[in-house]
Amino acid sequence: MDAFFKNHLDKSVNGHTPLVRSITVEIIPPSLKNNTSPAESLMRAAEKAGCTGGFELPLPVVRRLSEIMARSGPQIRAALYQQGTWGRIVDVSPASENRPVYGAAVDVGSTTLVFALINLDLAEVVNEISLPNPQIQYGADILTRAHYADKGPGLETLVSSLRNSINQGLREICREPGIDPRWILAASMAGNTSMTHYLLGLPVSTLIREPYVPVINRVQGLTAAGLGLDMAPRAPVLVSPNKGSYFGGDLMAGLAAAGFNQVEETCFLVDVGTNAEVVLGQKDWLIGAAGAAGPALEGGVASMGMVAAPGAIDQVRIDRESKEVHYRTIGNLPPQGICGSGLIDLYAEMFLSGLIDFQGKLTLPRGHERLMETDEGPAFVVAPAGETASGRPILFSGIEIDILTRSKAGMFTILSTVLKSVGLTFDQISRFFVAGTFGQYINPRMAVAVGMLPDIPLDRYIPLGNSSLKGAMLALVSADTRRAIHEIWDRLTYLELNVNQEFMNRFSAARFIPHTHKHLFPSVGSVIR
Amino acid sequence: MDAFFKNHLDKSVNGHTPLVRSITVEIIPPSLKNNTSPAESLMRAAEKAGCTGGFELPLPVVRRLSEIMARSGPQIRAALYQQGTWGRIVDVSPASENRPVYGAAVDVGSTTLVFALINLDLAEVVNEISLPNPQIQYGADILTRAHYADKGPGLETLVSSLRNSINQGLREICREPGIDPRWILAASMAGNTSMTHYLLGLPVSTLIREPYVPVINRVQGLTAAGLGLDMAPRAPVLVSPNKGSYFGGDLMAGLAAAGFNQVEETCFLVDVGTNAEVVLGQKDWLIGAAGAAGPALEGGVASMGMVAAPGAIDQVRIDRESKEVHYRTIGNLPPQGICGSGLIDLYAEMFLSGLIDFQGKLTLPRGHERLMETDEGPAFVVAPAGETASGRPILFSGIEIDILTRSKAGMFTILSTVLKSVGLTFDQISRFFVAGTFGQYINPRMAVAVGMLPDIPLDRYIPLGNSSLKGAMLALVSADTRRAIHEIWDRLTYLELNVNQEFMNRFSAARFIPHTHKHLFPSVGSVIR
Repeated sequence: MDAFFKNHLDKSVNGHTPLVRSITVEIIPPSLKNNTSPAESLMRAAEKAGCTGGFELPLPVVRRLSEIMARSGPQIRAALYQQGTWGRIVDVSPASENRPVYGAAVDVGSTTLVFALINLDLAEVVNEISLPNPQIQYGADILTRAHYADKGPGLETLVSSLRNSINQGLREICREPGIDPRWILAASMAGNTSMTHYLLGLPVSTLIREPYVPVINRVQGLTAAGLGLDMAPRAPVLVSPNKGSYFGGDLMAGLAAAGFNQVEETCFLVDVGTNAEVVLGQKDWLIGAAGAAGPALEGGVASMGMVAAPGAIDQVRIDRESKEVHYRTIGNLPPQGICGSGLIDLYAEMFLSGLIDFQGKLTLPRGHERLMETDEGPAFVVAPAGETASGRPILFSGIEIDILTRSKAGMFTILSTVLKSVGLTFDQISRFFVAGTFGQYINPRMAVAVGMLPDIPLDRYIPLGNSSLKGAMLALVSADTRRAIHEIWDRLTYLELNVNQEFMNRFSAARFIPHTHKHLFPSVGSVIR
Repeated sequence: MDAFFKNHLDKSVNGHTPLVRSITVEIIPPSLKNNTSPAESLMRAAEKAGCTGGFELPLPVVRRLSEIMARSGPQIRAALYQQGTWGRIVDVSPASENRPVYGAAVDVGSTTLVFALINLDLAEVVNEISLPNPQIQYGADILTRAHYADKGPGLETLVSSLRNSINQGLREICREPGIDPRWILAASMAGNTSMTHYLLGLPVSTLIREPYVPVINRVQGLTAAGLGLDMAPRAPVLVSPNKGSYFGGDLMAGLAAAGFNQVEETCFLVDVGTNAEVVLGQKDWLIGAAGAAGPALEGGVASMGMVAAPGAIDQVRIDRESKEVHYRTIGNLPPQGICGSGLIDLYAEMFLSGLIDFQGKLTLPRGHERLMETDEGPAFVVAPAGETASGRPILFSGIEIDILTRSKAGMFTILSTVLKSVGLTFDQISRFFVAGTFGQYINPRMAVAVGMLPDIPLDRYIPLGNSSLKGAMLALVSADTRRAIHEIWDRLTYLELNVNQEFMNRFSAARFIPHTHKHLFPSVGSVIR
């Protein structure tokens, strides 16, 4: 068993409880004295395994059983999917082949699709790959795609391009380990609300119009065939539920992976994607809010912004005295742009070395070699033309700095508004999970320094990595995680921020670096001095 | 509610409990304050209705819900299929349309397919039609078809011709009442083991070879889409289970319709089709046997034999003195042949009027106008050439009389062997159900007179009609019948007759008319005198 699964399953109540499990069945050989059909032996084994309240034995499985019986012994391995006392035999194979039950977990991101192939019998990751989301050709962001979906056959195009890519991913992930994709007998998928709707083939028009309500929240009883996915046709497919347009299944899966349904102390989780999604709570209650703090932080707004790919600047240090800029790029390539974590580093280092002031204004005098005049005003030269991949300098303009200031103010305001709504203060937060690539690469010290994240001990910040994928993976092997996702979904209360005057006041106060109320960031003063 | 259903449901424990039932759901209109999706409202209603242990909301239903919400009010009618605590929404429609849940019951006979369209909300038959089984073109009997299925694409041909005809029947049955076949949200089918295998698309090769074991006995979790049937794709389809190659789902459905799972006194049920199937028992035990007593009784062996269709002689009377023959035909048409019940009548009347002796030999002197010499020996003229549709006389040859004698002997022997196996005698039988067209038209007095059926009070004989269809219909509206079918299936013990010396001794004794042991038929003497 992989350490990742073991860690979680050891802490769970029910242990290793895969969505589809192997059972071994001894088929009674038909004779004149025993006219029990092979299928009946199989069904009795399933009933013995607990499926007493209803049953599905798909006909293709019955036909395969006939074929197997004709060429191999009476020992059969059956893959059983059970929901309460109801069950389904997803597939059968000769016991002599020793074929495990495979499952696929997919993080259905708007930019990237990440696949994990898992041996459910052993709770082990067999392979992991990622593919770009092919929908990007119809729109880089969710809103553009939603408008595209609204016209003509747009929805069908987006749906089939996504499903085709998922099928491609399933084929690719099986190639190296030499597995037939039809041996994948279970799947678990998590994505934001839009991506989930595309996956399900549902219209997204209500997602982008007031009152922004999804067509569906929870999805149950899905099969691979129902979604047009090329694995075992009757493989159950879990799709993580959403709580409205802004709280997607990726967040629910992430909260489950972080154990929000059982933490005793109050925790925060922040997921920065298209929006910043923030959830506060513990095992008995959960409150969440979402706001447009994201784009700048993901590198989507700045002219030189890019995703965390090779050639992206992901770390920046500026000498406090000489103001010399040191950056690191992913893959050590000449820089092409700057990703979210690099942007926060840059912004914080500029502030800490005095290149921008507490209002976020550039302080360098005109004519300084690191300052360049552009059509949109002065810009800071992060990397001069001679160092970059394109031969053009990588710039950080005053306007962009301003957008980032508003983004970080937005983030802090969302966090404090959510906190205030339950009457808590930041020092009462025992753990602060940061999901996604943003969380994986960001330096919390930097984010605190600029007043984006609260000034709590740095060891309380926990990067979650791809928590959406992790939640989807865990759901394949743990009944506790499957229950956790639904408990979290059920408990989560949505806090509407848009129409809140207090929110706007707080936002204004957070537009200074680190904050108008410096006492909120006691450690930052010491960093500066 | 139709009287037929009312009779059964009044006696049942759970009353009117349709397989798929209507529930009315108030969809909460989405607003900024309530971001619950329409699908979620639907699922909550289903949970409230008892589906707490797992759920399926098919995506096409979610899409239809979106469309309905866009053009009509928030009142929705949903069709819920529930198995224990697991459930599925099969379809949704605007409550204003007041559309009931329709179900289709089909008796999948090897000769005829009979369809009943039922309003499940009201337990009322809306329409009933029948179609010939199109497989007849590939073989008149089950064995010929099974051999055809074994070669090349034979199985696919038989499967698709059957499914196409069922789809044709569904369209036809909906035409007159003006119903869209997609409004059929449940189906219930019963047929013999071969027909069930064709319906399911399963090979029949094991059915006709020792040890004659079906590929499947019970089938569960079937949907219309899985069988390629043109109704609501996720409509549940019940298929009555078989107990081996000779005890088909039609018999199980018939036993359930006759209430064999709850009768306190011991009863017999006889179903004469390709084979004679005989079941003896009551609520605690059931024992059955099958044997080749059928063909002659169904009119399949005699040269002038035919099914009970227009032009068939279905009743015969012979004047004891003048030996004059009076017959009746279905539709009062010139006779084309003679059906099963007519054949028993003819055979019994010939015996009772002394035209055949107690060994089954023709007694008429050579040259009698009712006797004709043929290549195969003397034959009795049932209808002279001048009276028939073809212009050729309808004959009953000595050889055919002999086959009939063996058939009736076979029937009586099966009955007495089954009875003997549990240590009972015929006078302990409180009711004797006779299923099928044979049971509907046969005159029990005649069958007793020739020693085919036991000499018990005639009012104990109960014709069941198309009990296979009735069982299938009841299963659509009654959870008790659904349970009864499975209880009967579970309890029924198969008595193997083929290798039984005692059986052969009994058979020899039964080859006299009415029987070697005349004391077994005390009433027959009085009929003759």
